[in-house]
Amino acid sequence: MPRQSRGALLSTLQLDANSRAPLYRQLEDAIRRIVIDGELPTGARLPASRQLAEDLGVSRLTVKNAYEQLVTEQFLETRPGAGTFVGRISATELAPAVELSSVPARKSLSLSQRANRISQSRSVLRLGGTKPFRPGVPALDQFPSSIWASTHSKVLRHSGTDNLGYGPPGGLLELKQAIANHVQDHRGVRVDPLQIIITAGAQQAFVLIAFTLLNPGDRVWFEDPGHIAGRDAMHLFGADVKSVQIDNEGFDINQAVASYPDPQLIFLTPSHQHPLGITMSLERRMQIIDYAKSHNCWIVEDDYDSEFRYQGRALPAMQCMDNQGQILYVGSFSKTLFPGLRLGYLIAPPVMVEAFSVAQTLMSQNVSPVLQKTLARFIDDGAYNAHIRKMRSLYSHRLDIMHNSLSKHCNDLFHFTKTDAGMHLVAWLRDRKLSDQPVCESIWDAGIDCLPVSMYCDKASIDQGIMLGFSCAPEHEIENLIMRMDRVVRGLL
Amino acid sequence: MPRQSRGALLSTLQLDANSRAPLYRQLEDAIRRIVIDGELPTGARLPASRQLAEDLGVSRLTVKNAYEQLVTEQFLETRPGAGTFVGRISATELAPAVELSSVPARKSLSLSQRANRISQSRSVLRLGGTKPFRPGVPALDQFPSSIWASTHSKVLRHSGTDNLGYGPPGGLLELKQAIANHVQDHRGVRVDPLQIIITAGAQQAFVLIAFTLLNPGDRVWFEDPGHIAGRDAMHLFGADVKSVQIDNEGFDINQAVASYPDPQLIFLTPSHQHPLGITMSLERRMQIIDYAKSHNCWIVEDDYDSEFRYQGRALPAMQCMDNQGQILYVGSFSKTLFPGLRLGYLIAPPVMVEAFSVAQTLMSQNVSPVLQKTLARFIDDGAYNAHIRKMRSLYSHRLDIMHNSLSKHCNDLFHFTKTDAGMHLVAWLRDRKLSDQPVCESIWDAGIDCLPVSMYCDKASIDQGIMLGFSCAPEHEIENLIMRMDRVVRGLL
Repeated sequence: MPRQSRGALLSTLQLDANSRAPLYRQLEDAIRRIVIDGELPTGARLPASRQLAEDLGVSRLTVKNAYEQLVTEQFLETRPGAGTFVGRISATELAPAVELSSVPARKSLSLSQRANRISQSRSVLRLGGTKPFRPGVPALDQFPSSIWASTHSKVLRHSGTDNLGYGPPGGLLELKQAIANHVQDHRGVRVDPLQIIITAGAQQAFVLIAFTLLNPGDRVWFEDPGHIAGRDAMHLFGADVKSVQIDNEGFDINQAVASYPDPQLIFLTPSHQHPLGITMSLERRMQIIDYAKSHNCWIVEDDYDSEFRYQGRALPAMQCMDNQGQILYVGSFSKTLFPGLRLGYLIAPPVMVEAFSVAQTLMSQNVSPVLQKTLARFIDDGAYNAHIRKMRSLYSHRLDIMHNSLSKHCNDLFHFTKTDAGMHLVAWLRDRKLSDQPVCESIWDAGIDCLPVSMYCDKASIDQGIMLGFSCAPEHEIENLIMRMDRVVRGLL
Repeated sequence: MPRQSRGALLSTLQLDANSRAPLYRQLEDAIRRIVIDGELPTGARLPASRQLAEDLGVSRLTVKNAYEQLVTEQFLETRPGAGTFVGRISATELAPAVELSSVPARKSLSLSQRANRISQSRSVLRLGGTKPFRPGVPALDQFPSSIWASTHSKVLRHSGTDNLGYGPPGGLLELKQAIANHVQDHRGVRVDPLQIIITAGAQQAFVLIAFTLLNPGDRVWFEDPGHIAGRDAMHLFGADVKSVQIDNEGFDINQAVASYPDPQLIFLTPSHQHPLGITMSLERRMQIIDYAKSHNCWIVEDDYDSEFRYQGRALPAMQCMDNQGQILYVGSFSKTLFPGLRLGYLIAPPVMVEAFSVAQTLMSQNVSPVLQKTLARFIDDGAYNAHIRKMRSLYSHRLDIMHNSLSKHCNDLFHFTKTDAGMHLVAWLRDRKLSDQPVCESIWDAGIDCLPVSMYCDKASIDQGIMLGFSCAPEHEIENLIMRMDRVVRGLL
């Protein structure tokens, strides 16, 4: 193939006069691609700019601009008096062009063992759902967006450039102080604000804990059924996670001690067991704290939705019984505000704070200071407490309606007890032949977003049940939705 | 000690009438603490509510409220006709009270090996700085806060509840599309939006790459001097990071091949080497791509500040030469907008996208969808490009002033060449007896926030130099700051 005719392939290029990209950029991209793809090898001569301009119906300046840029980039080179040629781009001939989207990563470029371990994680399933009866989703339409937006604007406009930088590792003191006040008022937890690390949601707090405290193979006691994403966080770094059953007082430490002695860490949801909703008895709490003290292990207290209690006052957090600095308390704003905020916090013994802050910095840097400052103001202005109070009353009402609707329509299908806390209740299937997963799948098809209890089980063999979130279901729709669900389940009998 | 007199210690309690906490809550907290601390053992009788109310000078209802709550919590119990007693809280006697802030974590509760490995990381040092001459910090006072705030408000107020949930794993398609357009226009990178993962900044992208692709002990080639936080990200998961020198064409692949064959991953900053500012030659790029192709390894292209080029147009990203799906391209909004935004992106071969999304979900869930949507609108409205254009012109001007000031005042102290890209230039110390770290420390004391080049070195033994960020220094101050710095350095001679 003579050099000139190779270059002639340029004259067949299609340029798009309506594109956002100027013509010289289009031409430049096209030539670069042809060179990279090896269609014009090193040394091939390009058409004279006048000729190519004529062939393409563009101005000569367009072609000259494109050539000059490619010369700057070393894709092309000019030889005085001889013309423009493809540069010495590589000793090796490049492979033929392939559309990137059709390129698989080579087999030997495989995932790490860690990545393979989590690739089938169930916690990623259907993450985005916010439809009625989705457990754990707040009443998003009730969020005071205008107050939040104007607080955010004030922070951006009036606090100068202070909050546009990375901010201090571990978070803004202003937000730590606001959280310290909140957990003292709501949860009886007394902390120095400097014990708090602001995280990108509770999940990041779990990951920081696993990263900072667990070596591969370290034993972790985990509730079964339990918080799937929390369990995945422990797995991320190779922990040996042991599933421990739940009895009517909560986490069954006696089974754990008998079966899997000497854990490094115990992961608990004592206020409102996730997903069963049991509140751990005081005696059980004391027993676990004593064990942790005598066996030198950490306790993670995941206090994910304890702001929502409808009868009596909540038990204070286990953290307030800790006089040895062994409890790591994790809180979240996903339930009290909205999940898409991606803010949570970790309360740790003072000597551990720096290690967690360093780990967070290396994993993702800080949480946005603008966001932190907005939340701090929102709390300090009283908007946070006002919203929690309003939602507590609303959710209590929704819970009543859901419980009454279930009692009225579905008593023969499910047994259930009215929860006194949280954002969902569990309806247990009376018919032993039904499995909760296919039942839920049928309910999903009817536009209702419940979850099967078995999804949260590792080895536990418990009754088949359905988690129904009442917090995100409008009052006037709940009974109709329960009736719709009732019809779906009856259809499966 | 008779029971009654133990209980009498309650009468010495101090309640604070001016506290935000109501008196019954204060009393309740105090009694709970006394019980937890073991000062009143199981079975101890509490004073009658009437008596305690009198001793404390509070109403009887206050005491009754506190007692009732503590009975609910099982800390206390009532025996009809006999009074109120400390409950059976634990078989084991609790340890005496300790102020939490004085409690060290026990020695055996030590950090994981991983956490120890990073505990001395240099990348956490002085993270928050935004003072003049801080390298890599944009002109924060020029950020269009009002436009951003009003875009954010519109997203919150007009897009319903869609963006308040967790959002889709890997990010919002709308933002991916906006980024795909941006990188095509600015960097010549042609991607399908579905190849993009939205991350909480570039650092999270590096962490996802290390987590997903590297097993402990896997070899990584890293630039030396190089991006400290990027190197730390590779270290996080136990990679064997090998430092490779930089020559005047960039990353010295010949040294790498000779010294450390067969890496799993090569980490590069080809557009503008971090921190030296060298643009990698096209020939070197081709050579590295060929090597990666024939040896089946990944290339990370960290394209952190390539939007800022002041002379000529930038070389297109290496990513656009990749026809085998081996390049992972990382971009950031920390330089073009502001670091506290905490948004970046990873462009990956299609088959790898899911693995990265799963890893991100388990590490911290998604990036806030409200934030993503705000940025997508900001880009689509043209505000992003307008800001980049404005900053490019401003930074070019600031670079001129800095370069001229250095030439005018410091030619005998430093040698330097004017950079044609990025946000900082390097001034090399002529005096061989000076070390850049103590020189920088003295400059810091004068309120100027430069960084020493040696901080970025692992094994490299290069000249001693100072990185001077021109982007965050107001035009009218630059010459004075350079003169101040000049005086400080002369004082050290």
